[in-house]
Parts: sequence; C-alpha cells; structure tokens
Amino acid sequence: MSKKLTKREDDYSKWYNELVVKADLAENSAVRGCMVIKPYGYAIWEKMQAELDRMFKETGHENAYFPLFIPKSFLSKEAAHVEGFAKECAVVTHYRLKTDEKGGIVVDPSAKLEEELIVRPTSETIIWDTYRRWIESYRDLPLLINQWANVVRWEMRTRLFLRTTEFLWQEGHTAHETSKEAITETKLMVGIYAEFAEKFMAMPVIKGLKTESERFAGAVETYCIEGLMQDGKALQAGTSHYLGQNFAKAFDVKFTSREGKREYVWATSWGVSTRLMGALIMTHSDDLGLVLPPNLAPIQVVIIPIHRNDEQLDAISEKVNEIVKELRKKGISVKFDSRTTYKPGWKFAEYELKGVPLRIAIGPRDLEQGTLEIARRDTLEKKSISQNDVVNYVEKTLEEIQNNLFNKALNYRDTHITEVDTFEEFKDVLKNKTGFISAHWDGTTETEDKIKELTKATIRCIPLNNKIEEGKCIFTGEKSTQRVLFAKAY
Amino acid sequence: MSKKLTKREDDYSKWYNELVVKADLAENSAVRGCMVIKPYGYAIWEKMQAELDRMFKETGHENAYFPLFIPKSFLSKEAAHVEGFAKECAVVTHYRLKTDEKGGIVVDPSAKLEEELIVRPTSETIIWDTYRRWIESYRDLPLLINQWANVVRWEMRTRLFLRTTEFLWQEGHTAHETSKEAITETKLMVGIYAEFAEKFMAMPVIKGLKTESERFAGAVETYCIEGLMQDGKALQAGTSHYLGQNFAKAFDVKFTSREGKREYVWATSWGVSTRLMGALIMTHSDDLGLVLPPNLAPIQVVIIPIHRNDEQLDAISEKVNEIVKELRKKGISVKFDSRTTYKPGWKFAEYELKGVPLRIAIGPRDLEQGTLEIARRDTLEKKSISQNDVVNYVEKTLEEIQNNLFNKALNYRDTHITEVDTFEEFKDVLKNKTGFISAHWDGTTETEDKIKELTKATIRCIPLNNKIEEGKCIFTGEKSTQRVLFAKAY
Repeated sequence: MSKKLTKREDDYSKWYNELVVKADLAENSAVRGCMVIKPYGYAIWEKMQAELDRMFKETGHENAYFPLFIPKSFLSKEAAHVEGFAKECAVVTHYRLKTDEKGGIVVDPSAKLEEELIVRPTSETIIWDTYRRWIESYRDLPLLINQWANVVRWEMRTRLFLRTTEFLWQEGHTAHETSKEAITETKLMVGIYAEFAEKFMAMPVIKGLKTESERFAGAVETYCIEGLMQDGKALQAGTSHYLGQNFAKAFDVKFTSREGKREYVWATSWGVSTRLMGALIMTHSDDLGLVLPPNLAPIQVVIIPIHRNDEQLDAISEKVNEIVKELRKKGISVKFDSRTTYKPGWKFAEYELKGVPLRIAIGPRDLEQGTLEIARRDTLEKKSISQNDVVNYVEKTLEEIQNNLFNKALNYRDTHITEVDTFEEFKDVLKNKTGFISAHWDGTTETEDKIKELTKATIRCIPLNNKIEEGKCIFTGEKSTQRVLFAKAY
Repeated sequence: MSKKLTKREDDYSKWYNELVVKADLAENSAVRGCMVIKPYGYAIWEKMQAELDRMFKETGHENAYFPLFIPKSFLSKEAAHVEGFAKECAVVTHYRLKTDEKGGIVVDPSAKLEEELIVRPTSETIIWDTYRRWIESYRDLPLLINQWANVVRWEMRTRLFLRTTEFLWQEGHTAHETSKEAITETKLMVGIYAEFAEKFMAMPVIKGLKTESERFAGAVETYCIEGLMQDGKALQAGTSHYLGQNFAKAFDVKFTSREGKREYVWATSWGVSTRLMGALIMTHSDDLGLVLPPNLAPIQVVIIPIHRNDEQLDAISEKVNEIVKELRKKGISVKFDSRTTYKPGWKFAEYELKGVPLRIAIGPRDLEQGTLEIARRDTLEKKSISQNDVVNYVEKTLEEIQNNLFNKALNYRDTHITEVDTFEEFKDVLKNKTGFISAHWDGTTETEDKIKELTKATIRCIPLNNKIEEGKCIFTGEKSTQRVLFAKAY
C-alpha cells in the first residue's frame, strides 16, 4: 500500500479517511458502521483513557460497570430521552440460534424475548434504575461514578472515529443532594475535559452551553467543549449534562435529606468517546500523515539505524541501546527499529505517517563523530547533535513540540472566530473563511433551525463567561443580549 | 442491611451470594443474568486488569478493539464453533424503535436487518475475518493481539461473577507461521495465567489439558488452569486454545511463507474473565466476609480513629496524616476513614467484610504512648506496635499475608488431591472428602460422560508434565497410561 495521502486542500475528507487507515489507526469492519480499532490507534486511545481516568479519580470518581442491555420499557420512562434515542437503537429480540431443515443457521423463533432489550446507546436509564437501590439518605450522596464502555447508536452515515455505530467511551453518572451541587459537578467535568483537550491533545477548546435544540435528550442543560478542525469545521469533543431531577423522577429515586424530608435526587452525566481520536487527527495532522502531541504519542522517539552491513548494524545497535536506556530512565517512550526487512527510507515515511514526534537516525559516520541526526515531526526540521546531548535535547524538544502544536492550533482557532453583524457577512464568512462565527441570535429555536436550513451552520455553543452586550439577531433583527458561536460542524 | 453472613458450613452457596452483595462487589441488575459490578468490586477487577495487561505487553502483545456484533453467517463458518455457541447467542434483529398508535414504544418492523447480528460470545470469527486483510506474508507474523471487552452468552442459570449472561474479559488472538510457534504461544499464555493466579490472586492452580468434550468449540487443544475452592469444587480460571488452522481455513487467511508458498496461518486464542473475581472470593474468604490478598486489594490498609470528641479526632488526624504520607511513599494504598457518621465498631465490621488486609486503630491513649493497634484480616490477630515501626511493619506484614494466603490455599489444595484406584473409592471421596480425584481413565468420551452422569464429576484436566504410569480405568478397567484429575466443578 502506498504511503502517499491525498492532499488536504484537494479533498479534506478523503485525506482524513486515508490517513486513518494508512496510519494504522482504524478501519471499517464487515459489520456496517462498526470499526476495528487497530493496535496503533488503540495505543493512543489507551493513553487518553489513562489520563482521563487519573483526572476522574483525582476528583473523587470511582469506576463501575453496568449492563450492556437495557429493557425497552426503561428507555420510555424519560420522555425526552426515548424521543432522542428511539430512532437509533439496536434491538435484541432473540437469545438462541438453531439449525433449520436445510442445515443453515437461523434465529430460533421459540427463543423470543418477552421484552426486547436495547443495546445501550447511553446508560442513564439502567444506571438510575440501579441508583434507586443504592441511595437511601444524604449519607449515600454524592455518588460519583464513571463507566468505561462500548455503546451503540445506529447511524446511517458513518465515518471512522467521528460517527460509528459502535463506539467506545466513558460515561460519568453522578447523584447529588442539591441542584447547586449537581451544577457544580457538571461544570467541573466540562472543565476537566477542557484541561485534558488542551494539555494532552494540544487542542484548544471553547467551553460553552448548548442551545435547547442541541441539548442531550433528557438534560436540563448541556455544557460542551468545541474544537476547530483544520478545515474550519467545528467538532463537539465532550459534553457534560445537568439532568436536574428528570431521571430521579422517571426512576423514582428519592433520598432522605438532612432535614428528614424525602426528596428527588439531582443528577449529572458526562462523556467523551473515541470521537476524540478524530479530533486529535484533524487538529494537527498534515499531508505526510499523522502529527501526534508527545503527551499522547505511544512512541515518542523512534531510532532508525543507517547501515550497509551487519557489522555496522551491530556497532550502531550497541550505541543505540545505551541511548534507549537513558531515554527510558526519563520515562520517554522510545522504539529502536532495527528490522532489516525494511529500508531506512521506508521507515522514515512510515514513522512520519504515524506521527512519531521525534525521529533519530544514526549511521557509521555518526558513530565516528559521536553525533546523531534528529528530526521533528511537527516542523520537519532536522539537526545533527552530539550523542551526549541526546537526553536533554529530547526532553526539551518533546515539550517544545507539545507547546508548538497547541499554539499553532490556538492561533488557527483564534484567527477563525469572526464577529459578524449581518446575515450577508455570516454567509460570506461561512463560504470563504469558515471557522466559528460570533453573532447575535434572538434566542429562538425557530431562527436557529432556519439558519441551519439555509447555511448548514449550527449554534455550537453559548460560550461560558460570555460578554453581555446589546445587539440584534443577524437573521430576524430581534433584540439579543449576547453573541453565540455558529459553525458548520462534524 | 446487616453485615452478618450465612456461615459457609451451613450453606456455602448462600454465603457466596450474600458476600458478593454485602461486600459491595456486584449485584443483579434488572436485566436477567446481567450483573452490575459495583465500585469496590470493579476496583479489584481493575487491579487484575492492570497486572494482566502488563504481563501481556511484556510478552509482546498489543491491544486492539473489534466490533461487538458478528454477522450471523460468520459464526457458521467454523462448524464446531457455531455448534458450541449457537444455543446461547443474543441476536439483534432490528435497528429502530417507534411510537405505536397507543403511544407506546415498539420495535419498528420496517427496520429489520437483512442479516441478523450476534452479540459476540467470543471474537474468533470477526477477528479472523479482519486478519485476512492484515496478513499477507510471514513478515506480518506473528500477530499478537489482545482485546479487553464485554461478551454475551445467554445463560439459563446465572450466578454473580461465576456465570453471567454478560461478562467482562480479555481475549487474546494470535496468528503464527508454524504450528510449533502457535503451540509455544498457547503454553506461554497458560503459564502467564498460572503466574498471575499464584502471584497476585494467591490462588494455586493446576495447569493441564482439557479432554475433547471440555475443549473450546473450534480448538485443537485447550489448555487450562484449574483452582480448588474452599467447598472442594474445582473452578476453571483461564483457558488458552491452540486453534490449529481451523479459523484460517474458515476465513481463508493465508500467508506467503519464507519459502514463497501460500499457507494457512496457525492460531491461538486465550482468555480470562470476571469469573476470576468469583475464584478470588471463594479461595480465601471466611464467615466474616471477603479476604483479599494485598497484591489485589484496592485498600491495603485502613486507619480508623477512636475518639470521643472533635478535639481528640483533630489530634489523631494530625498523627494519622503523617503515617498516611509515609505509607503512600512506599506505594501502599491506605485509607483514613474519619467519617463521624459511623461508629468505630461499624467500621471494623465494614472493613472486615470488605477484606482489607490490615486495619489500624488509633485512640487518645495511643497518641500519648506513641502506639497504634494493627489487625490482620487473614489471621484476625491484633497487635499494639510503636508508631515509629508502622511503615516497616506494614510492608513486612502485607508480604506475609500474601504468602500466608497462598500457602493456606496451597495446603488445602494439596491435601485435597486424592489418588483412587476404584470407582467405589472415587464415589466415596466425592461424597465425603471432595476436591480433586486423581484416577486412571480409559481415554474415551463415553466413559467420561457416564462418570459425569453418575457422579456429576468431570475431568478437569490432564495435568501438564503428568507422570506416565500404567493403570486401569476406574470405570471400565481398560488400560490407561496416566491419571487425570476429576472433580465437581463450578
């Protein structure tokens, strides 16, 4: 398979699909809309999981596991929730196969379930059914639980990582004594998502509130983080929902308060998914392939020997093994690719495609001179340095790359938030500049829908800590008190 | 809820069920046969996962993720495989719900799948369908991949952790150039399972081969580890399968060999599941509750203050915080339970029930004297020691507890392997002594089935490195070359 990718400017969408497959991140499976996450892609996801899991635990959350299946009747208990998910549910109706007369394998009609089971699209219902048994009094609160799981939402048009029928995610589900405490939790978690996105993914995000039409089915408020991809489209990277007492009421979960009263419990839920992989790819990568921030790179440094014979390889390997040891001592993840089945040029292209932040090459002349060649994936700069400096240089440069990627993405994002005051300008920016558009809106779903219909742009969020200013809706001219962010989005 | 458990000698099965629920490990959900793994139980599972995952990676395996769903036709491609799993498959037939005339939520008949999807009971078929695309030549081999996932096998009679409709597990799926290499891998992995069971779970296991009738559906040979529970019943704790070329043939996976020939790939698969939680519980726990080996205990040391007023609690807390810091420096997981909503007596019982290996109590008199009281969960011994000795004492004692639990279980196991030479003795041991029975068997499935029918005992395994000795089958009197291990089993 050729390593060459379609260029971004020629066809961004094709570039993305090719990159995901060629960089060994994921591929489509034989099951419509379900992906296989390949080892290299999964290694990045594992690094994401490890950091998020640590952040969740540091803020007092514990992991647990709830069933994959949800009785159909549970979904219906919260009206908005079922409305939101009914159209994309995989339904289990039978629990046995059998051999038919012709020797084929068929579903056994005698093994039909009395009540169908839904493969979880999200777990609020099964979890709140459980919480009813766990919560008796304020002493049992707050309940701060997270689950790492697979979920299924039947999608008609799928794209690797961005929109797949099955995806992996974490879903936090917390229960609280008061509305205030639940709102604080909702905001805390959107803050943690933002911190993770910026520190680890090197992806700047805007924290905001969703409008009613973009809200989670069953939520009172949905907070989100929104990133901006290189093609000027926004991507919702994580959401945190304040659920009020909606699920407590639907599943009759009450607690005895400090005042001795029986009250409904207050709830939140929040999640990020393998969609983050898509966001990571589209924030940094280039026409040569993936570009990974060092904080999430499974291999931070790859070392490639340049040699003509086994003797040279032996001499190089001896030196490289010392370097590898020193780098690993510092917690740096390093791979020495000494395979002789592939040529150096092939390997250079391979690790460029896979986004390894630093590449070191060592040849016989380097051995003589005590040098090595080191190349940065982000800037493609090459440099010859002394072997004695390698540990310091690598440490310092990995940090620089992490910061550089963030700053580059931040600069792109910040120069792609455009304030407009008329619908003409709005359409012009969408067409010619893309990115976020900051504009006044009259606050109605009707206007939001019309703008979407005409332009495909949606309100990504009402930024938190938004400036309050008087203005007029760009579409209707009605009064408005603040600007909101529009964009075309994934 | 009372913390008192049914005694093991009164009703072992009831004791187990109560313990799992009361120690906050797991509980039944609203979905038949599916459990909720509670935070404390899940924390133990996470420790198991972390160690196993490390061991897999140290032996060159990588993680990946494959779809939850398997097209029905895939299952049928390997004859023995479908035969083994068809009767316990959850089947997805539809992908949408809708509102009916009465406003109820029903399955939308217009959203019927052309081909039904099976919720994976194990992933050989979907994975070998993928490997066909990944493997071209010997350069792509070996392929050493593991997946952490949930699987579903429709069980009619379920028990928490031991047999549930949905369970969590890992499944390794490897591909090799030669039969020999695949067999080496199969043995390596059963060895890793044994090492994990003994070093971390403190559970002695016997490594062996399964007989034909107990073999995995689709395997050429199944290797296993078998533990012995306190009630004298065996428990299969992990299996590693040599699959020969069965799945390569079913999914047409060939590679170009070093000699340039197109050959079918050789395969293995291996797995352990949340069933290990059941094994852990039944190997060590007692009538007071769970007993956890320190290597898998989420909390290794709990510290409980004994105080009459806030002033005393403040003074104790100050001292305890120092101790906590010192212990954590050594990587010891410690919890200071200073809640005033519960009395010390309640806490003592709670942590006994939860199997925390060491409990420290500190009161005002201890503060004066520079002492503390430390109690071992395994032996229930209490001791007063100097606060200055606490770090050394804890380190040393945690190690002692780990070894003590293993040795106790080993002693029980070793005194419960009984050699018998007649069927009368066999039945007598089964009835009065229980445990493993080492006996000659004529090697036929027919005899194995009859013994099972008459006694409910099955052949757990043919131990690896078994002694070859002439003998006569205890049931038919036919010639036999080695003894095998029988037992009643979970």
